Amino acid sequence: MRVTYLGTGAAGGVPRYGCNCLACERALANPVFVRRPCSAYIEDGDTRVVLDAGLMNLHERFPMGSYSAIVLTHFHPDHVQGLFHLRWGVSGHVPVYCPPDSEGCADLFKHPGILEFRPQAKFEPFQIGSLTFTPLPLIHSKVTFGYLIENQQGVRFAYLTDTAGLPPETLAMLQQNALHGMAIDATAPPPSNADHAPGNHNHWNQALELIEQIKPTRAWLTHIGHRSDTWQIDTNPVLPAGVNVACDNAIIDLQ
Amino acid sequence: MRVTYLGTGAAGGVPRYGCNCLACERALANPVFVRRPCSAYIEDGDTRVVLDAGLMNLHERFPMGSYSAIVLTHFHPDHVQGLFHLRWGVSGHVPVYCPPDSEGCADLFKHPGILEFRPQAKFEPFQIGSLTFTPLPLIHSKVTFGYLIENQQGVRFAYLTDTAGLPPETLAMLQQNALHGMAIDATAPPPSNADHAPGNHNHWNQALELIEQIKPTRAWLTHIGHRSDTWQIDTNPVLPAGVNVACDNAIIDLQ
Ligand SMILES: [Mn+2]
Ligand SMILES: [Mn+2]
Ligand SMILES: [Mn+2]
Ligand SMILES: [Mn+2]
Ligand SMILES: [Zn+2]
Ligand SMILES: [Zn+2]
Repeated sequence: MRVTYLGTGAAGGVPRYGCNCLACERALANPVFVRRPCSAYIEDGDTRVVLDAGLMNLHERFPMGSYSAIVLTHFHPDHVQGLFHLRWGVSGHVPVYCPPDSEGCADLFKHPGILEFRPQAKFEPFQIGSLTFTPLPLIHSKVTFGYLIENQQGVRFAYLTDTAGLPPETLAMLQQNALHGMAIDATAPPPSNADHAPGNHNHWNQALELIEQIKPTRAWLTHIGHRSDTWQIDTNPVLPAGVNVACDNAIIDLQ
Repeated sequence: MRVTYLGTGAAGGVPRYGCNCLACERALANPVFVRRPCSAYIEDGDTRVVLDAGLMNLHERFPMGSYSAIVLTHFHPDHVQGLFHLRWGVSGHVPVYCPPDSEGCADLFKHPGILEFRPQAKFEPFQIGSLTFTPLPLIHSKVTFGYLIENQQGVRFAYLTDTAGLPPETLAMLQQNALHGMAIDATAPPPSNADHAPGNHNHWNQALELIEQIKPTRAWLTHIGHRSDTWQIDTNPVLPAGVNVACDNAIIDLQ
């Protein structure tokens, strides 16, 4: 199973519009530090899944027919905004697996175009090609699923964003399934350095505590905000073995 | 007064996602034929206004402080989707003049970020720097304004999209104010060539009839769909003197 981080940024990304903080200046000067809307691309043999649709150029990056399905964590604009344009494709259907959120985002349900939304139920696995996705409820300001993703060789990857902590049943499920990899929301720096704790996202320490409890072989912090990047530049924090901060376009082979 | 057509496409633009019609293949092969989300940029001395916000890279194209305000025709995604990212700027305020649509689009009103929405009333002029904007009701599936835009030298430009026909009071107002330029919705080809007439947009003939009734010095057809472009390639229609089909990035000086 191959995971590509398409975007690793919090809402607004890095650089934030009009910001001249250390992290945003660095990203303006060097594209390697840019963080686009949080999303990923999962490949397993012929199965190719786009996980969240916040990239503004989604329609250019993924031509029709180049992927099996789109899977959504939730309907906040930074996770679905790429669909507003892509949906107006002229033929075919794009399956979009999503949480059971009756509101969706703007007029996506009213005018789905080529999108075929398929709401899923928590903890009920669904299949896309060779991959089994199990929706895991997260704790966020809108109905949100993380996903446990498993291939036929038993390689398991969990994608857990956006969330502030984890519900007990989700945590238990992740602890019961030994994970080869896990990506988790770590939007903010530790709270001593934050103006205020973000209500709907993990901060750095929360993310590390969850990794400690779940014990995946490898873990990545993602959905990173510019304040966290600035804090990392300032403090150069040491991460536990196997844990890294995700960056855009990184390709991870899990086996 | 200088008008730049940032985008001249109907929802979905040209090329449409996954389409291989004549117009879409042409646009894929040659970027000069691409039609981005319908929007414009109006400059008059130091006054710079972004008219509609559907460009996906709006935040890159228009750095903070490079424009005076954003003016919106309506809250359909193809006219506001660039705001979902831009709003998360870190400081300052961006005035956004808009029609009085209590719904807005998705969570733009709930989480405006740096955007300062300023709903306007029909036919009540407002001032942005040296430009006077008069909101003109249009006929569309959501509360929509066209705008009569006038500078201090009396140069007048009307921007009329999205609309199917024009309300009598809007038409009367445009006939009473001699126009130097006018951009009008012409989404679809003539109906004999269309599968069905579009309910919420002009077709080619409707747009030309309105131009004939309003008699601006110059006029541009905009919000063009791929079916119209294909029809134009096929039939090479002759336009009345002073009338052109708008294209992306065209710069027009009105005086
Ligand atoms: Mn998010
Ligand atoms: Mn969210
Ligand atoms: Mn439109
Ligand atoms: Mn519209
Ligand atoms: Zn910053
Ligand atoms: Zn086409």
